[in-house]
Amino acid sequence: MTRKNRNFSLRTAGLQKTLTVRKIDSVIIFNMKNIRYLCGFTGSEGILLIGSGRPVLFIDGRYTTQADMEIQGVKIMECADKVEAVALEIHKKKYKRVGFEADALSHSRYRQLHSRLSRVKLITLTDELRMLRALKDENEIALMKKAAEISSSAVRSLIRRVKPGWTEKELAWQLEVEARKLGADELSFPPIVASGENSALPHAGLTDRKIKKGDFVVIDFGVMYQGYCSDETCTIAFGKLTDRQKNAYQLVKEAHDRALEAVAAGIPASEVDSKARAVFGKKSARYFTHGTGHGLGLEVHEAPRLSPISGDVLEPRMVFTIEPGLYIPGLWGIRIEDTVLLKKNSCEKLTKMDKKLIIIE
Amino acid sequence: MTRKNRNFSLRTAGLQKTLTVRKIDSVIIFNMKNIRYLCGFTGSEGILLIGSGRPVLFIDGRYTTQADMEIQGVKIMECADKVEAVALEIHKKKYKRVGFEADALSHSRYRQLHSRLSRVKLITLTDELRMLRALKDENEIALMKKAAEISSSAVRSLIRRVKPGWTEKELAWQLEVEARKLGADELSFPPIVASGENSALPHAGLTDRKIKKGDFVVIDFGVMYQGYCSDETCTIAFGKLTDRQKNAYQLVKEAHDRALEAVAAGIPASEVDSKARAVFGKKSARYFTHGTGHGLGLEVHEAPRLSPISGDVLEPRMVFTIEPGLYIPGLWGIRIEDTVLLKKNSCEKLTKMDKKLIIIE
Repeated sequence: MTRKNRNFSLRTAGLQKTLTVRKIDSVIIFNMKNIRYLCGFTGSEGILLIGSGRPVLFIDGRYTTQADMEIQGVKIMECADKVEAVALEIHKKKYKRVGFEADALSHSRYRQLHSRLSRVKLITLTDELRMLRALKDENEIALMKKAAEISSSAVRSLIRRVKPGWTEKELAWQLEVEARKLGADELSFPPIVASGENSALPHAGLTDRKIKKGDFVVIDFGVMYQGYCSDETCTIAFGKLTDRQKNAYQLVKEAHDRALEAVAAGIPASEVDSKARAVFGKKSARYFTHGTGHGLGLEVHEAPRLSPISGDVLEPRMVFTIEPGLYIPGLWGIRIEDTVLLKKNSCEKLTKMDKKLIIIE
Repeated sequence: MTRKNRNFSLRTAGLQKTLTVRKIDSVIIFNMKNIRYLCGFTGSEGILLIGSGRPVLFIDGRYTTQADMEIQGVKIMECADKVEAVALEIHKKKYKRVGFEADALSHSRYRQLHSRLSRVKLITLTDELRMLRALKDENEIALMKKAAEISSSAVRSLIRRVKPGWTEKELAWQLEVEARKLGADELSFPPIVASGENSALPHAGLTDRKIKKGDFVVIDFGVMYQGYCSDETCTIAFGKLTDRQKNAYQLVKEAHDRALEAVAAGIPASEVDSKARAVFGKKSARYFTHGTGHGLGLEVHEAPRLSPISGDVLEPRMVFTIEPGLYIPGLWGIRIEDTVLLKKNSCEKLTKMDKKLIIIE
C-alpha cells in the first residue's frame, strides 16, 4: 500500500469517528474536493457514501475508467441517476441516521434526496465537516510549499521585467506563462493585477489599463500544484509616490507583520484579525474592507477563517493567509499577503517574496 | 442608455413576467451567472432581489466600488451579512411569496433564509429559471461567435504544428498560449487533450504521456470572451490507424452529422440525441457514454440538455453543442463536437474546424 492510500483510509476513519459521536451511521459526500480528499477521485461529478465497511463512490459512465485508475479500497458504482443509486444503497445497508453536507448540497438536490429517503433521518452537517481538511498532513504540506515556491518565483521574475506602459492583462498573462514554465498545473484563482485607481477594488478584474508612474499595482496570484493551492499578494509601486501612499504602505506592512507575530497555536483566529485591525486605528480601519485571512488547501478558500466574526481556533498544521489591505475609493489600494503554516511552536511562511516596498522607476 | 443597459432591463422584466404567472411577488437570485445576466455585476459574491420597483443588489465591502462602476438601475446595498439584509428588505417591502433558485442555494443557506423569513412563503424555483438564459440575444451571439472563432483558430494553428513526441500537457499549454494571443480572456473549462488509451476517458485529465503513432488525440477546448464560452472537440490521428479505428471515426462523424441535420426549432432535444444514438446501433451505443450535447453561454454547461432523458424543446436563439463520441476502455476514444446556433429556419455552426479525419504523419 502506498503512502497516499494510507492517508485516504486515515482520513475516512477520522470522519467515521466524528460521525460516531453524533450517532450517525453514514454520510453522503457531494463536495468534489471532499471526495478527492477522502478517496483520491479527481472527476468533476460523483457522490461518495461513507458508512460501515468500504466507502462507495457513485459515478456516471464518463468516469468509470478514470475512477478505476485513481482509487483503491472504495467500491465504484456506475449509474445514470446517482441520487437514486445512493438512496437504494442506503436502504440496502439499512442506514437510519444519514449525515449530508448542507453547504455542498443544493436545496433542490436535498429535496430529491429527501423524497427518496422518507424513512431515514437526514442529518444536516455543517460545522462538523467544515474542519475536515483544515489540518494538513506532510504530503499536503509538501505540495503547498512547492505551489508557493512556484508562485513566488513567478512574481519575483516578473517584478524584474515589468515597466510602466505594460497593461494589467499583459502582466497577468506573463505571470501565468512564467508560473507554467516553473511547473504550475494551472492557476488557483483568476489573477488580480490591479493598477492605479483599480487597485482600490480588492477583487478587481483585469483591464487594459496601462501601468503608469505614481501607481500602486496589487498583484494577487496563486497556482495549483498537484491539486493544491498557493496564494500571495505583493503591492509594488511605480515612479514617485506621495507621502500618503508611502505611509499607507508602511501601515499595511505593519498590520501584516503584527498579525503574523500574533499567529500561535491555541488562539482564536479573530485575535489575529484584531491585531491587524488595531494597527489601522479608527481612522483607517474603514478602508480595510475584508477579513485578515483564510485557510487554503485543495481550495483557495477553506477553513479556518481569520475575521472579526470567526469562531475558529488556530491549530498546528493549519495553512492560511495573512492579508491586510487598505483601499481608498477612486485613488489606490494596497494589500500584502503571505501564506503561512502554523506549527506547534512556530509559524513558517510558505510564500517567499519579501514584502518591503519595491519602487520601479 | 446604452444597448447593454436596455438588455438588462428587458431581462429583468421578462423574469418579473414569469413570476407574475406563479403569483410570486419577488425572487432572490443567488447564482452569480444569473446575477451577471440580470444586472451586469461580475463580482464573485452577491445576492440580487427582484420584486416591484428597482432590483436591489446586496454585496460586501470588497465590491462596493466595482458594483458602482458596473451597474445602473439597480440599488446597491453594502452589508456584512447579505442573507440578513435580504430578509430585512423583504420584510420592509412586505413581500409575501418569495421565489428562490433551489439549484443555486445550498441547503444550509436555505435554512438561514427560512429561519429569518418565517412569515413569508418561500417558493422553490427550478424549471422556471432553468431556461432564463437559454435564448441568446444578438449581443450574446456576437460574443459567442467571437469566442468560437478564437478557439477554432487556436486548434487549427496547433494541428499544423503538433508532432508525435509532444506531451498532452505541452499541447494543451500551446493551445492556451495561442488562444490568448488571439484574444481569449481565459479558457471556458480545463482543456482535454487525451491521447492513446487516455482518449477512452471522456473527461480525461492532462498527463505527461507523449503522443505516438497510432494514437487518436481528443482535443476538447473552449475559451471565454467577455464572459461568454466556446466549446469544440476535434479528434485527430497520428501515423497509421487500424481499420477499426478508421471505421469508428467515420461512425462518430456520421452520428455527429445526422444529429446536426436533425436540429430544428420546435423538436424535442431528446430527438437529436436519439438520431446520434441510432447511427451507433446496439453494438456500439454502449460505448457512447454521455449525452449528445448541452447549451452554453455564460457557463459552459447550461440549458438546453440534449440527452435521452431531456424534456427540453429546441427553440430559435438557443446555442448548444452536438458532440457524440465512442470510448473503447483501455484502447482509444473519439469525440467530434461543434457548437451551433439554432435560427428560425436553419442552424449555424459557430465553431469553424472541419471535422474530416486529419492524420498527422
